[in-house]
Amino acid sequence: MIGAEISELISLFSKIPGLGPRSAKRAVLWLIKKKDSQMLPLIRALQDVLTNVKTCKVCGNLDTAEICSVCTDTKRDTSVLCVVADISDLWVLERGGLFKGKYHILGGLLSALDGIGPEDLRIYSMLDRIKENNVREVILALPVTTEGQTTAFYIADAVKEACPDVKVFTLAQGVPVGGELDYLDDGTIETAFRNKSSL
Amino acid sequence: MIGAEISELISLFSKIPGLGPRSAKRAVLWLIKKKDSQMLPLIRALQDVLTNVKTCKVCGNLDTAEICSVCTDTKRDTSVLCVVADISDLWVLERGGLFKGKYHILGGLLSALDGIGPEDLRIYSMLDRIKENNVREVILALPVTTEGQTTAFYIADAVKEACPDVKVFTLAQGVPVGGELDYLDDGTIETAFRNKSSL
Repeated sequence: MIGAEISELISLFSKIPGLGPRSAKRAVLWLIKKKDSQMLPLIRALQDVLTNVKTCKVCGNLDTAEICSVCTDTKRDTSVLCVVADISDLWVLERGGLFKGKYHILGGLLSALDGIGPEDLRIYSMLDRIKENNVREVILALPVTTEGQTTAFYIADAVKEACPDVKVFTLAQGVPVGGELDYLDDGTIETAFRNKSSL
Repeated sequence: MIGAEISELISLFSKIPGLGPRSAKRAVLWLIKKKDSQMLPLIRALQDVLTNVKTCKVCGNLDTAEICSVCTDTKRDTSVLCVVADISDLWVLERGGLFKGKYHILGGLLSALDGIGPEDLRIYSMLDRIKENNVREVILALPVTTEGQTTAFYIADAVKEACPDVKVFTLAQGVPVGGELDYLDDGTIETAFRNKSSL
C-alpha cells in the first residue's frame, strides 16, 4: 500500500540511530504534511552539510575549512592536547569553554566486541602530532566505560612509549556536581572513596 | 563551536517528532559519518517524495498520482466508506487486507484543546462523497480515545443528518486478540463486559 518513494524514505529514516520503523514512519508523514516549512529546509540543510562540511585533516573535527577553526586558532595552547572519542565530546567541552588547548578526535573507542582496533582510530596521527608539536600534556577525556578506559590505558601506554617526556592525564572521577549519594551507583561511590581528597 | 551548517541541520532534525535536541545531534553526526551510504540516498529520497508524492484529491491518501491507487481501483466497493484519522491508519488497515471498500482520511481528530474544529478536517468533502457515490455504509475506524470518540459521534450525527439512509458503524471494542485480562485496563474490561456476545 505504501508507495515506493515513501517506503524508501521510511527505510532510510529508520536506519538513523534513535529512530525505528514506527518512528521513521511518523517522521516521514510529518515531513510530508509540512513540505514547505520543514521538508524543503531539511533537504537544503542536508545538501549544505553534504557539500560544505569536511573532516579536519589535523584533529578530526568537522568544519567547512580543510583545517578546522580550533586547529587554526593561534590563541590556543598547542602544547596541551585533549583526546576525545567523538566530535560530540568536543562540542560538550567547548560548551564549557574551560579548555584552551587543542583537541584530537579518535573517531571511536577500542572495542574487541565490535572489532575496532587501534588502526581503526586516529591514534597514530595523534602520536605524530604529539611529536611534531612538542606537546607536553595529553588529557584523555574518554568515557568512564569499559571501552573508554581500555582505550585510555592503550593510548597512555602508546604515548609513554613513543614520547616518554609527555605527561598523560585523565579526567577526575568521583561524585558529579549535584550528585546525591543515594542516587549514585556503587562504582561511582567506590571510585569517589578511593580518590578522596583532603579539605 | 558547532558550525552554522551543522547547527541548522540539528535544529531541523530536532523538530521531527520522536527526535529531541540530543538525538538530533546524534543523528546528524551519524549521517555526516556516512555521507555516501546514508546522507546522499536520504537527500535523494526526500527530494523524490517532495517532488512526486501528492495528496489524493478524493480521499486524502498519499500517492504519486493526483487520484490515488485506492480511489482509482475499480475492484473496490464504492458503496462502503472507511473513515480514518490519518494516512498511517489506512496503511495499517491495508496491511491486513480485510477491507475492500474505499477510504476517507480526515487528516486529524476534533480537539478542543488543540483548536481543531470540523472545518480543519476533511468532513465536508466526506459528506459530498457519500452523497455523490451512493455510499450505503460508513465505517468509522477512529482511535478509542476521547478525541477519537468525540470525532466519531460528530461524524455519525453529520452523516445521519445529511444522508439518513446511510448506515454508520464503528469498529468493535473489547479484549484484543492475545489480550490477557490481567494486563488490560479497567476501561477495556468494562467495555468488553458491556458489549458481551453470546456463544
